[in-house]
Amino acid sequence: MPNTAFAASLFDALDRATREGRGIVRASYGPGEQAAHDIMHAAALELGLACRVDPIGNLMMTLPGRDRSAPGIIIGSHLDSVPQGGNFDGAAGVAAGLAALARLRNMGFVPSCDITVMAIRAEESVWFDIPYLGSAGAFGLLDPAVLEVRRSDNGVMLADSLRAAGFDRDTLAMQRSLLEPASIAAYLEVHIEQGPVLVEEALPIAVVSGIRGCLRFRAARCHGVYAHSGAVPRRYRSDAVAATVALLHHMQLHWDKAEARGDDLVMTSGEFFTDPAMHGASRVAGDVQFVLDIRSTSDTVMQDVAAEFRRAAAHIATEYRVTFDLGVGSYSPPAMMDAGLRQRLLSLSGQPFEMASGAGHDAAIFAKVGIRSAMIFIRNRNGSHNPDEAMAMADFAVAEDLLVRLLLDFPS
Amino acid sequence: MPNTAFAASLFDALDRATREGRGIVRASYGPGEQAAHDIMHAAALELGLACRVDPIGNLMMTLPGRDRSAPGIIIGSHLDSVPQGGNFDGAAGVAAGLAALARLRNMGFVPSCDITVMAIRAEESVWFDIPYLGSAGAFGLLDPAVLEVRRSDNGVMLADSLRAAGFDRDTLAMQRSLLEPASIAAYLEVHIEQGPVLVEEALPIAVVSGIRGCLRFRAARCHGVYAHSGAVPRRYRSDAVAATVALLHHMQLHWDKAEARGDDLVMTSGEFFTDPAMHGASRVAGDVQFVLDIRSTSDTVMQDVAAEFRRAAAHIATEYRVTFDLGVGSYSPPAMMDAGLRQRLLSLSGQPFEMASGAGHDAAIFAKVGIRSAMIFIRNRNGSHNPDEAMAMADFAVAEDLLVRLLLDFPS
Repeated sequence: MPNTAFAASLFDALDRATREGRGIVRASYGPGEQAAHDIMHAAALELGLACRVDPIGNLMMTLPGRDRSAPGIIIGSHLDSVPQGGNFDGAAGVAAGLAALARLRNMGFVPSCDITVMAIRAEESVWFDIPYLGSAGAFGLLDPAVLEVRRSDNGVMLADSLRAAGFDRDTLAMQRSLLEPASIAAYLEVHIEQGPVLVEEALPIAVVSGIRGCLRFRAARCHGVYAHSGAVPRRYRSDAVAATVALLHHMQLHWDKAEARGDDLVMTSGEFFTDPAMHGASRVAGDVQFVLDIRSTSDTVMQDVAAEFRRAAAHIATEYRVTFDLGVGSYSPPAMMDAGLRQRLLSLSGQPFEMASGAGHDAAIFAKVGIRSAMIFIRNRNGSHNPDEAMAMADFAVAEDLLVRLLLDFPS
Repeated sequence: MPNTAFAASLFDALDRATREGRGIVRASYGPGEQAAHDIMHAAALELGLACRVDPIGNLMMTLPGRDRSAPGIIIGSHLDSVPQGGNFDGAAGVAAGLAALARLRNMGFVPSCDITVMAIRAEESVWFDIPYLGSAGAFGLLDPAVLEVRRSDNGVMLADSLRAAGFDRDTLAMQRSLLEPASIAAYLEVHIEQGPVLVEEALPIAVVSGIRGCLRFRAARCHGVYAHSGAVPRRYRSDAVAATVALLHHMQLHWDKAEARGDDLVMTSGEFFTDPAMHGASRVAGDVQFVLDIRSTSDTVMQDVAAEFRRAAAHIATEYRVTFDLGVGSYSPPAMMDAGLRQRLLSLSGQPFEMASGAGHDAAIFAKVGIRSAMIFIRNRNGSHNPDEAMAMADFAVAEDLLVRLLLDFPS
């Protein structure tokens, strides 16, 4: 039976230590994240796990296997949060790992290889805005230039923040790898779902098919000509709003077609604005800035959508006598979860529901360096990155139980 | 032959007196407007016209007719400007009137009724934002509450600005009518075109068919739900940008149909913005604010478009799981120019080109009180309300000549 009392006590301790006002604050490499690491570290020592902290602050809590030299299993997640976040985003994965190891230990189960719960640093990294700082740093994947990135709130450089927290800037400066992909048999991550799918589907958990890549036109612009809204007939207008509306509507129709084909795709223009210094109710708008954020588990689908975006922009620019400056799209590739592990989890769960993750997770980094990876999503109400996220312990128990059953009979 | 030298000297004097930096500044009831009135007043006295200033500052410059008691003709336009405006917007109409009367006088022509050039106050009224202050005030049409409106730049109330300029606040307070519609046979206004139509059509002038009304949704809002751009599938989104794009695109298609039917219509969303405090590149937008500005010379067309806007918003709100709050639309009715005068001007001009005015003009007020009104547009490059407006004196001469020919044989 899953040990929800143990996990619940971890969540309570985290809540007490890191709630500030309505929400949770566990700033990457700040006191809130450290408090969370301390809580998990103490719990792991009490469980008799072998603990160590790597040079950039990732906490490794290991249940030793029969063959200590065999490639081990890592169960990972982050402990940092966004400002005024919720208690479960990230922490649920570490708690699930520890609860699973506690249960295996109570059973007297000795795994064939080491199983390590890894509390990863700075996944959200809101203040530094360096994606996957802890996991990418552990594989030596970060550009050393990130050491000079300053915290958005207090201006302290990452290098100084690391030093102040007692960690080692040189690991990142030298791009030293702290983890050897060949020595890791698998990476497993439990995380709350950050969307409404499991609530809507009335399911406690899902197996994650893959982590969507993101191709983003961060600051696309349409340039037209400001003009009198009454005095300039349509045929002489270069209306930046009308042209951008036409372009984005075209992309919505393109999305319809992709959905009809069964493609995995989400597309969002979360920012769309005329220039407040120039626009007016009686002026045709001469400028618009907007975003197009394209996500899919399929790189082909993303590239196809981006190509259609460029094609349509060229066509509509001519039709509306405007120019589009789409900028250079930023790009992170999709990360597919391991087919064998997904199959095994689906079969063990007895509930064959898979879904894509639209948000990024450390699992994307482990998959990127060639480690077979898998994720389990837990139902969660009200989304995440806000104080209202709500995960039921009964749902957590379903995920933890699935993790234990996978570990008890791990496919080699 | 048109007297362009006389008019050119007026424009030169106005330019010298009211240019500040790159542009023209003739603030309503401010020193710039007064300087323009003084220049016109002096020129009119030199021409031997009978001049008087009404209690709110409108300047009446009259060539007496044979029958002084017969309903007279007013040739009107304004002398105020927008901040950093051009030299011709408004002033060209007064100059054309004076040049026409100068020519009639030189010919020894005595009209059957009085012909008065009326230099109207405060049509732009940018600082007070009271539409048609001078002409509506002269007909007693203004709500006395306008007296308490404060200048946007220095906070001085209209009542005090009038007093300081030597005019009479009581006229507005009592809604006294200074002009009797029954005593006005016709109102004629010459104005530069504020759009590019005559430049594009390669025509010096146009007869104005009517002044478009405006039905404006000034601050329409779409309320959706902020959500993660990657983690929330399309079917669970309440995307305010996608819904507003769908609505405005629908309105563009509706415009296509109206154009195909030959309806006079322009439609503009000059402001469209997500909330800068809340939006983000990886967030589905939960709020959008936008404008829909609908203009037509046909009230039926405007009302039809507004009805379609409301219908489509209701339909799209359901489809996109958002709510639209369109607000109460502001409304100014279209003002058709007199059919007989239009026909006469078209026939005299030998160039049968009519067009609607998308911007408002004092002629709308004269038409509203039942006076038959007509307007002539003069070709003008670079739009108006900016220092780059450019009217050629040759085009001005075509308009002035048309005005003279109309007055020489005025239809009773």
